[in-house]
This record gives sequence, C-alpha cells and structure tokens, in this order.
Amino acid sequence: MNLRVVLVEPMYDGNIGSVARSMKNFGFDQLVLVNPCKIDDYGMAMASHAKDILEKAKAVATLEEAIDGAGLVVGTTGKRIGEEHKHLRLHIRDPWLTPAKLAEKLNGKDCEVALLLGRENWGLTNQELQLCNLLVSIPTSPSYPIMNLAHAATIILYELSQMKPGGFTLACPETLGRLQASVRSLLEEINYPKYKMDFKMIMFKRIFGRAELTEREANTLLGMTKLLRWQVNVHKGQGVALETPEECSQPTSWP
Amino acid sequence: MNLRVVLVEPMYDGNIGSVARSMKNFGFDQLVLVNPCKIDDYGMAMASHAKDILEKAKAVATLEEAIDGAGLVVGTTGKRIGEEHKHLRLHIRDPWLTPAKLAEKLNGKDCEVALLLGRENWGLTNQELQLCNLLVSIPTSPSYPIMNLAHAATIILYELSQMKPGGFTLACPETLGRLQASVRSLLEEINYPKYKMDFKMIMFKRIFGRAELTEREANTLLGMTKLLRWQVNVHKGQGVALETPEECSQPTSWP
Repeated sequence: MNLRVVLVEPMYDGNIGSVARSMKNFGFDQLVLVNPCKIDDYGMAMASHAKDILEKAKAVATLEEAIDGAGLVVGTTGKRIGEEHKHLRLHIRDPWLTPAKLAEKLNGKDCEVALLLGRENWGLTNQELQLCNLLVSIPTSPSYPIMNLAHAATIILYELSQMKPGGFTLACPETLGRLQASVRSLLEEINYPKYKMDFKMIMFKRIFGRAELTEREANTLLGMTKLLRWQVNVHKGQGVALETPEECSQPTSWP
Repeated sequence: MNLRVVLVEPMYDGNIGSVARSMKNFGFDQLVLVNPCKIDDYGMAMASHAKDILEKAKAVATLEEAIDGAGLVVGTTGKRIGEEHKHLRLHIRDPWLTPAKLAEKLNGKDCEVALLLGRENWGLTNQELQLCNLLVSIPTSPSYPIMNLAHAATIILYELSQMKPGGFTLACPETLGRLQASVRSLLEEINYPKYKMDFKMIMFKRIFGRAELTEREANTLLGMTKLLRWQVNVHKGQGVALETPEECSQPTSWP
C-alpha cells in the first residue's frame, strides 16, 4: 500500500508539523496539503525531526487534485450517524470502519490510498465525504468525541503502520471511474428516480471501496453494466451504439 | 480498571493540555503531574473541552507519591533494548509490551493502574523504570522512533479505552509490596550475591506484574517465601522469629 496523507484546509501550522512528525514516526512520507495555512516556525518546531516531510509536502488548491490517481480514498469523520438519524444523509457518514478494521481491510493489498483529514473546526464537508470510498472513525467517549487533528492522524497511522506488505493488487482508479460512470448511465437509462441518484452513486462508491475490487472484477462488472445498457437500449428501441465489452462478444445470445 | 495518567516532570504546558484532551476523548479523568512546568493559557487552550481534567489534576513532588496505591505501575519507553544490548541493564527496559498487548493483558481486570509518561527530552530514567511492573513501548519506525509525548499518550489511551469492564480482581499493592520484601529477605538470607540483588528484584517486580497475580496467589507466594525463610533460618540455626502464615500452620511437617 502506498499512502498519502491529505490535510484538507488545515488552519494551524502546529497541527501540520505535528502530523508530519507522526507520519515519520510510523514510516509514511507523502503529505498533501489542500489550501493550507502558512507554515511558520511553530509548525516546523512541532515537526521536530520530520521537517523533511514538511519541506517536500505538496500544496494543492483543490481536493480533486489531492486525490488524483488514488484508487482508494479514505475519509475520516468524528461525527457519526446515530441510530436515530440513520434515515438522514444515508451513505454519507455511514457505514464507517474503526482504524483497526481499516488496517485489517488494507492488510496485504497493493493500492494507492489517500487518507483525508479535515479542518480543525468542521472536519470534512458532506461534499468532500462524497468523494470517499471508505470512511474511518475513531471510537471515542460520547462526552467528548472530537479529537485533535494530529491525535486522530496519529492513531490511524499507528494502526496502518502495523500492516504487512502488499501482494494483492486492487483495481486502478481509471477502471473504477469507468465502472462508476457506467452504473450511473445504466440507472439513468432505466429511468431511476433522479432525486435518489446522487446518494445511490455514493452508495456504489462505498460498496466498491469496501469490496476492494480487483482489476479483473472491476472490468467484469463494467462489462456487465455495458451489456445491461445494451439490452435496455435494444428493448427501448433506441439502438444506442455502445462499445461491446470483450467478455460479452455475443450479447444477443444472452436472455 | 481504574487508570491514572502520571506525567513525570513534563516540560511544556501544551503537551499537558494535549494529554488531558486525549484522556477525555477516551473516557479517562485522573491526571497526576510530578513536578510539572506551570500550566499557562496555551496549555489550557490545548486541553480544549478537557479543562476540567487539568483543573482537577493532582500535582505532587515525587513519583513515589504519584504511584501510591497503584497495584500495577506501567512505564512507557521509546528506547528499546536491541538484541545487541540484551546483556546490558537486563530487566530495566526489557521485556516490553505493545499498547495492544497491554490492553489485552488488562482486559477484564479490576485494578488500580498508574501509566507513567516521562519528560519530553529524556523520557523516564532507569531509576523510575525500576518502579514499574510492566513496560509498554509503541512500535515505531527505526528512522524516527521518538514520539511526541501527547501522541504516545493518545495511542496508549486509545488502546486501553477498548477494554471491557473488569471482573477479575488483582492483588492489592500492599500484599505485592510484602511479597516483594519477603523475596528480598529470602534472597539475602541465602546469601544471594548482593551485586545482583537490585536487578533480580526488578525482575521479580516485572514477573509479578506480567503474571497479574490475584490476592490469593500473592498471599500464597508470600506464605511460601515465609516458610522458606523459616526453613532456611532453622537450618542456619539462627531461629529467627517469623510470623507463620496461615496456609503453613505446620511448617515442621514439610520436607
């Protein structure tokens, strides 16, 4: 696994330095900062012997740039949906994994992972969480659940540092993107209710993320969605020209 | 398990506040400070919504006062003995548990635990580590093993917060103290080499700590050492008056 730590709009340079220190303590070195505050002397001091990580950190303007090329985008949230609110914003903050379960899940996998940590005051927005394939949350006391940014990063990095080296390669982000787009097209073509669409697409993103699809599996699912779209469009008499996937070279022979 | 977090001579109030915040995040509230720096506005700010823990923290002058009444004293160390130095200072920094193993070990136990965290620059001294029954160390990267004090505390508290409530009561510190003293007397009475004594007593402290003795077991061992001392002294013809433990009311019938 290749991990990049993405801090989204961090407000205090002390926290950025502190995260860099924990990254070095646990053997990680790729830090990406989305629209960060300025890093002054205090931030450098908090990094202690991890100034090299701060110096080579990449600053970008948008989260999309920060996660470009990542096959698995992991969002962190301190705000968890209680049973009483399960009907609200379904799929945005639920389900989530503990840091230990995340490490267990990623153990032995080869993939490019982006770990997103949000602002000190608000965390990640719903829009940002929608970009995530997996959510992680640290089980804390209900009387004070909100952790310091660097403390939260430390716990997740501590858990991830205990993983074994990879050997099981996950689907690349391009294939996953094509699969996601194909599922959306299919739902549109069967007139799935538009107002439900965005949340269902988040649901698929999360399911594909938790399922840790291999490239072969992602391609097979992509082929199936293309075949389904072909069938749907034939029945609708629209005869839309769709690229026929390799594994379904005889689509007409299917029921 | 009843946990008190003991910071030994902390140098920066930001770290004290930061530890208080993590304690509240994970549901712990007893903080003891040995000869601490002054806690100013910055320390209070880092505590965030855990100022109550800072306000009721107990400041003491010595580590002995801080651990008074604790049945299990857990020391933390970032400096681990490598294979090449195993012959040096044996029993002082070795063996150590990971935070996860510590939580597994304490799971379901009822006892008073003191978790000691040392100074930001030097950690705990060898003299302080000698007072510990268990050692814990966080597995870090060899390229930068030394963690920030509050980060280290956060990881250990995170692991300990996942334990189940107790049910298995450990020996009280008074009985363990009497057992320790009785073992030392026994070794002295058999003329065990004086120069080895201190390290062997640390070894016993650690073995008794890791073994998680119950009150009954500790009393039985205490009875056995008393019986042994009685036998040794009878053979030496000194006839030292020793209190006869209940479980060995007929010591003369033993071989």
